[in-house]
This record gives sequence, structure tokens and C-alpha cells, in this order.
Amino acid sequence: MTLSPLSLEARSQADDPSSLVMRFGADEPLMMDAGIALAPWQIAYQTYGTLNADKSNAVLICHALTGDQHVANDNPVTGKPGWWRTMVGPGRPVDTNRFFVICANVIGGCMGTTGPASTDPATGQPYALNFPVVTIRDMVRAQGALIDRLGIESLFCVIGGSMGGMQVLQWAASYPHRVFAALPIAAAARHSAQNIAFHEVGRQAVMADPDWRGGRYLLEGTRPSKGLAVARMGAHITYLSEMALHRKFGRNFQDRSAPTFSFDADFQIESYLRYQGISFVERFDANSYLYVTRAMDYFDLAAEHGGSLARAFQGSGTRFCVISFTSDWLFPTSDSRAIVHALNAAAASVAFVEVESDKGHDAFLLDEPEMFAAAYGFIDAAARARGIP
Amino acid sequence: MTLSPLSLEARSQADDPSSLVMRFGADEPLMMDAGIALAPWQIAYQTYGTLNADKSNAVLICHALTGDQHVANDNPVTGKPGWWRTMVGPGRPVDTNRFFVICANVIGGCMGTTGPASTDPATGQPYALNFPVVTIRDMVRAQGALIDRLGIESLFCVIGGSMGGMQVLQWAASYPHRVFAALPIAAAARHSAQNIAFHEVGRQAVMADPDWRGGRYLLEGTRPSKGLAVARMGAHITYLSEMALHRKFGRNFQDRSAPTFSFDADFQIESYLRYQGISFVERFDANSYLYVTRAMDYFDLAAEHGGSLARAFQGSGTRFCVISFTSDWLFPTSDSRAIVHALNAAAASVAFVEVESDKGHDAFLLDEPEMFAAAYGFIDAAARARGIP
Repeated sequence: MTLSPLSLEARSQADDPSSLVMRFGADEPLMMDAGIALAPWQIAYQTYGTLNADKSNAVLICHALTGDQHVANDNPVTGKPGWWRTMVGPGRPVDTNRFFVICANVIGGCMGTTGPASTDPATGQPYALNFPVVTIRDMVRAQGALIDRLGIESLFCVIGGSMGGMQVLQWAASYPHRVFAALPIAAAARHSAQNIAFHEVGRQAVMADPDWRGGRYLLEGTRPSKGLAVARMGAHITYLSEMALHRKFGRNFQDRSAPTFSFDADFQIESYLRYQGISFVERFDANSYLYVTRAMDYFDLAAEHGGSLARAFQGSGTRFCVISFTSDWLFPTSDSRAIVHALNAAAASVAFVEVESDKGHDAFLLDEPEMFAAAYGFIDAAARARGIP
Repeated sequence: MTLSPLSLEARSQADDPSSLVMRFGADEPLMMDAGIALAPWQIAYQTYGTLNADKSNAVLICHALTGDQHVANDNPVTGKPGWWRTMVGPGRPVDTNRFFVICANVIGGCMGTTGPASTDPATGQPYALNFPVVTIRDMVRAQGALIDRLGIESLFCVIGGSMGGMQVLQWAASYPHRVFAALPIAAAARHSAQNIAFHEVGRQAVMADPDWRGGRYLLEGTRPSKGLAVARMGAHITYLSEMALHRKFGRNFQDRSAPTFSFDADFQIESYLRYQGISFVERFDANSYLYVTRAMDYFDLAAEHGGSLARAFQGSGTRFCVISFTSDWLFPTSDSRAIVHALNAAAASVAFVEVESDKGHDAFLLDEPEMFAAAYGFIDAAARARGIP
């Protein structure tokens, strides 16, 4: 499916018609870490399953950098299946026959929640870089306001991978009494120097595109597609393991058995990356990419608690299950171990599973039976402990 | 030191006045793997020390992707010390009091050797993308022609790191009787899918810059500086280890103790990377970057020998010393081990040293006493075996 620049613009500024939208007026600002009171604002979300009578069976799914609220339904933009249909659905670890599942587009995103492509009421034009810089805590605050509106006092479980896992940790730290169980996958309590570096290269690629126009491309009718595609290509490499790239592509030539001695996409890996770049720009807003990567870079949960990650979880009654993957070099197991050690130091309840996989960071989105088994076991036990039939 | 676009252009098209230049006329074409006979052509080089009477003490240093011939003298463009002064010089492992050291700019480069910025005699304009795609074997052929002209039958030793190490391997495979000793460092016998992927992102960043002008920027008076800077930033991350980045920068803020909630270079790592990008474009030609990365991507020594790396070295009388670094994830130790296994299978003489270092791929350029000790020991023993006093 190909979207014209206009359709993305229209979609970004209007509501995503296929999602539910919760609106917050001028008297209900989102208080952001940057010191800005954002108002009005809105959050687009999907739900699956039914909230039970005592509202004890709500599960919040937090999406990753380029994910969205369409976790278990076909994506209205790409036409592809929801991004975590393997994890969420009838009979899945997050069983929609048993739980009421909520997934919301993050603040700063581009799928219906207020972000840099939304209209700034002060000017009547897209916010662009006038949108306040977003943090993971802001994302969680926005989700908290949504959960309030839905009348849910306490979430049964908060689950997410990668940036979604950061939100899980932030939920547990910010609202310990509102999270019964927490499942951060392939996550970290702070973004590493290497990860900040990769994000910065991606942002510079976007900003180097003259069609970015200092962020004002929607107003000027351009799109920094080339820069955003380069950013996505670079990022995509970090989501896969060297082993997975070798297995999938090796040094295989594209449609040929010999080199062409040119700068065409000679190798299959080149063609694959170019496709990843091109298809991404059809579905994602460039400024949102800047804002959401920045939010991940700023994330440092210990820094919010005087440098002690354990203090972030002190006295927590939440039960945790932390999952990592052996070949994930973006959020390596050592990052998950740091979380587990902090939870232990805080005397929290925590299980830890390192899944043997050669698929790299993206493993959390893929068919990983050991991950599903661990998630199912943890969620089922927690549900029984909470009396969810 | 800042160079204007004009000065880079002038330098690329003229000779580097600070280097020796060997010229090859219309009757002495360089026969390239792409099937092109390049003529006329020239190769810019530096020498250090004195060639002995029986011409047995010549050492060839092969430079890496963005290196040049200025291995042990101050670089005339940047004003900085030579890139391997720690390895090459009086009393260094490659002792210029003992050996006659040659280092040449690669074919396709931009420091005086013929490359895409050189004038195409057919048009009187810069070659740009009309320059034939270059391979590592082409680089070695060009060096071979230089060595012939210098009247050197057999090199005492060929040494290089990274892409330089690829050339070392190619020398040993292409001219086994002309290489007494070979020292490939942080190298591989073929470029991996992940490495091709990183290079492709860099090339796409250059080509996405509208000032690249389909490669014709010199003619049109532009410079794809932004794209090339993004390419360099991304590549630079791969030269360092996660540990080195963490130790050097961590999550330290730039000149401040708190985030600015902006897209400025808030973290020190961002400021450092931006500097790497900006300073690189002052000294390197964008099209050369495309050509030289492509040469690395195409490198697959086993493929040249029916898929058997051992066959590349069959019957070799060369003595090898292979060095890798524990934290090098771009050319990991497993790549070096594959070389060693092939050399063993070919019954070649080989020593292998894996240096414990947390500095990543760039360790070969840095102060690594264990590397110097291994190189000194290997070179000294080989020199004594060859009767070099």
C-alpha cells in the first residue's frame, strides 16, 4: 500500500478513524517533563476483550519506537497484521478471551495521539519542532490519564518490548499501586551511549534532508523521505543480529550470481534494507521519529531516583518478569540483569528469563516459543493470584 | 584546519604535492576486475627509511577505508600526526632505521592516486560515477605496479589493519612469491552481511544528499557534505566498542548536568559524533567513500578460489601473523580465526594473537602494547630469517 504525502498529512492531523480516541480539553493539560502543559491533547487507542465487573483484568500493551496501537488488528495504514498478534489474541499469552487489552499510541507519535504533526492551537499550523520534547514518563502519564478516563484503578499487567519495556518500568516506578504485574521484554532502565549514538545518526539523517525544512515540511508541502529512509535503514541493522543477517542474506547476490560492479543493490541485504527504508517512510512521520528516539535517549530511570535504580522500585508490590534475548546487542541481557539486580535489591518479586535466540533485538516481535511460554506462565500465575478466572 | 570545497577539488584533481607520485601512461593500463583498462593512471605514495642493496628490506603498509599514504609523517591536509606513527618509525615495530617502508594511497582514493575525482581523459571532466568500480584486488594490482617500478622483486613484509588487512591477504594470495611475511590485523577474508549493510546505509546517506548530484558534484560546484557526515557518524559507531563508548561518554551531558529538552547535541556522545562527521568531510571525497566501501563489500577471497579460502593460500611460503581484538565487533576474532584455519589447512606458517582490548575495531590504530609486542616479535624474527640486520 502506498500513501501519498497528503494522505499521511491528513491522517496525522485528523483522527485515525479506525481507532478510539480519548480527548482532553484545555482544562486537562498533560503536564510534561519539559515543563510544558500540553492542551488540548488526545490519545488514540485500541481495545480487545471485555473489562470485567471489578475492572481487575485490564492489560496495557506499550508499543516500541515505530509501533502503534494496532497490536492485534490489521493495521489500517499498512494493511498488515497487528504487530504483536503472536502475543495478544484469543488463546495467546495475553488472552483476549480472559483480559481486557488496551494499547495506545504514544504521545509524540503519529497514529492519532497528539504529536508534532498535530495542529498547534496557538498557530493553527502543525506543531513541528514547537512540540515539547517528550519523555518516556510523559508517555506513561498520558496512558495514565487514559486509564483514569476508562475508570480503571489498577492495571492487572503492563507489557511491552524495547521502548515498550521502558514504559513498563516507568509505570511500575511512577504508579506502583496501579500495576499488579509488569513484563518488560528486551528493555533497559537507561539508554546506552551506543544506542544514543545510533539514534543521533538517524536524527541527523532526517535533519540533513533539505526537504525536512527545519521540521516545517508539512506546512511547506515536502517530505524528508530520503533522510528518514536512511535513518530507518541504519536502525534496522541494530534490530537484527549478525547471525540473523548472515543466515537470511549472507553475501548472496540479488537475482544474479556475480557482482555487477556498480552501486545498484547488488547484494540481497542491500535490497532488503532499501525496502525497509522506503516502506517505513510511507507509514511514519519524520518529526515523530525525532521525538520518540529522543524520548528513549533521555530515559534513565535511576537518574530520576538519585542514581539508584533499586530506589525506583522500593516497596513495590508489583510482580515482575524480565525477559531478554541472547543475541540482542541493542538491549543486551546485561541491561535486563541490571533491572533484575535492582528489583532484587528493592526486595521486589521478580522472575528472569534469558531466551536463547539468534534473531537479535527483533526477537520479541517474532515467533519465539520460549518467550511465549515464559509470558504465558507468568501472566497465568499472576491472573490466578489476582482471582481472574 | 578547514578546507574550502575548492581546495579539496583542486587537491583531488592535482597531485598531492607532499607525496611522491608514480605515473603510468596510456600503454601501461591498470587492468581492473570490472573489466576496464584504466589509463593513464597514477599512484601517490610515501616512503620512509632506505632500501638496502639487495632490496630485501621493503615493507608495504596498506591503509584502511579512510586512511592514506601519510602513515608516519604529519598529514598535509589535517596537520595531524601520521595515522600509524605508533607502529611505523624509528624504533617502532616497523623500524624505519631497519626497513624501507612504502605506503600508497589506494586506487579509487582521493589523496593523489587516480580515483573518481580525477580527470577522465575522455571527457576532460572528473570521472565521478564513470570511474570503474574498484576491488581490493585492483588496489593490490596497483600497488604491485608501483613495487615493480621501484625495482623491488619481493616485499619483506605486507602489513595493514581492517581494509589494509584485506589487502595483505590479497597480496599473499595474488603474489605468494613476492611476500615474505604478512601481518593482517583486525581483518577478514570476506565482508559480512552486517558490514555490507552498514556500508550500504552510508552510501545511501551520501546519495540521498541532493548536493551529491548523481555523483557530479565537483562539476556542479556543490558538495554532499551533510550526507557524507551522516555516513561517517554511522560508520564511526561501528569502529568503537559499546564499552569504549560507555567509558568515554556514558550518558554524560554536554556542558550541563541536565537535559535541555531539545534536539541540540545534549549528550557528549552526540557532540563527539557530529564532530567526527564534520571533520571527515573536510578531508575525504564523497565518491571515493562510495568506491572504497564498495571494494570492501565485494571482497571475498574464498570466492576467488572456488569457495575455498585454504586454496587461496595453497603452497604459500609466506609466514603469517594474524592479530584480532576481543572487543572488535566489526571484524570479530571469528573472522581472524577463519583466516587462521584456512592457513592451517593450506599448511602455511601462521601465528595468531587475539589481543585483549575494550577499544573495539579502532584498537589497531591505538596504543595497544600487546599488539606492538606481537608485531615487533613477528617482524623481528622474520627479518632475522631473511638476513636483514
